[in-house]
Amino acid sequence: MEKLAFLENKKLLNQLEFAVEIDKMKQIFRINLLADGSRRENDAEHSWHFAIMAMLLEEYSAEKVDIGRVIKIALVHDLVEVYAGDTYAYDAKGNEDKEEREKQAAEKLFGMLEPAQAEFFRSLWDEFEEKSTPEAKYANAIDRIQPLMLNYLTDGKTWQQNQVHSGQILKRMDIIRTAAPELWPVVQGIVRTSIDKGILLPKKSR
Amino acid sequence: MEKLAFLENKKLLNQLEFAVEIDKMKQIFRINLLADGSRRENDAEHSWHFAIMAMLLEEYSAEKVDIGRVIKIALVHDLVEVYAGDTYAYDAKGNEDKEEREKQAAEKLFGMLEPAQAEFFRSLWDEFEEKSTPEAKYANAIDRIQPLMLNYLTDGKTWQQNQVHSGQILKRMDIIRTAAPELWPVVQGIVRTSIDKGILLPKKSR
Repeated sequence: MEKLAFLENKKLLNQLEFAVEIDKMKQIFRINLLADGSRRENDAEHSWHFAIMAMLLEEYSAEKVDIGRVIKIALVHDLVEVYAGDTYAYDAKGNEDKEEREKQAAEKLFGMLEPAQAEFFRSLWDEFEEKSTPEAKYANAIDRIQPLMLNYLTDGKTWQQNQVHSGQILKRMDIIRTAAPELWPVVQGIVRTSIDKGILLPKKSR
Repeated sequence: MEKLAFLENKKLLNQLEFAVEIDKMKQIFRINLLADGSRRENDAEHSWHFAIMAMLLEEYSAEKVDIGRVIKIALVHDLVEVYAGDTYAYDAKGNEDKEEREKQAAEKLFGMLEPAQAEFFRSLWDEFEEKSTPEAKYANAIDRIQPLMLNYLTDGKTWQQNQVHSGQILKRMDIIRTAAPELWPVVQGIVRTSIDKGILLPKKSR
């Protein structure tokens, strides 16, 4: 970046260029709305909310977690969307090539950093995607309950726009049942109340 | 919150109400712009960017820090602005009653949580404000360099609007000199280049 050309420390220069590149997260909009329904939420806001909710609800993780690691995962988990864009969880077509698009984005974005740091950031993203550690499982649970709450509080507006039904939501939320079982009644209550209110389609009958 | 009244776990209900209340951070706008100059940045975005930059630049902290604690501080440091609003760093009048306004906001906001967790969140905010631990010093350094970079990248537009001069910036950035000395050349380079380009007033002569 020409504007920072005065810097002699090239490693630091790369890190600051990375910091500027990820500013684009503030312009990547998700499908879900803010709690007051005024507009869609962006990736930077979602990542912050996810991180602080992970901290707030740590006691409900089924397994003991290194909460510092969970929070780092939260901060980094959507960075690839700077290049790959947001893919709506209930968009079957968009999800077909999501993995490939995001892998390429990860190479490009984390490749801005020197190898050891690139590898560290990449490992946080990989861990989240693989969902195999206690930290990644709990992180995935919080990443899912955060927009569920926002969708519920905004009267299921985006569910209706996308004709989402309760079966899809329960499937997507399933990791909460095992990774944070005390939060499962939140999911159940939201789904049941939403169907009762007519803001969520009941699971399709066959 | 009536919408979550189905929850029997009252502690969890309070935590979720807190999670919804802090969604307002996404609507508290700061003076500085995003890196592309398109609009002002909000508190949720700033907190996320600060947290991830703290992680990215950890090696430049003068003292060894518990980075997990630094990141928690970053996530929480501006929460009181949900009630107290953002106070521009270079607004002398606004800063006169900032402390009192923010203390009242802290009581109200953290008071939504049960005492042990309220105390924990409050301790993170107090630590940041007191700037006495290595974690708080480094956190304050990153909290200052993040908007400095955005202001510089947007050609000092908000400096000019507010007639900010270089002496004010160097004073505000001073904690970087001691808490993250390898980042000090960034501050010096930005201030010098900005004065040269005519986008920042030089320090007032007496």
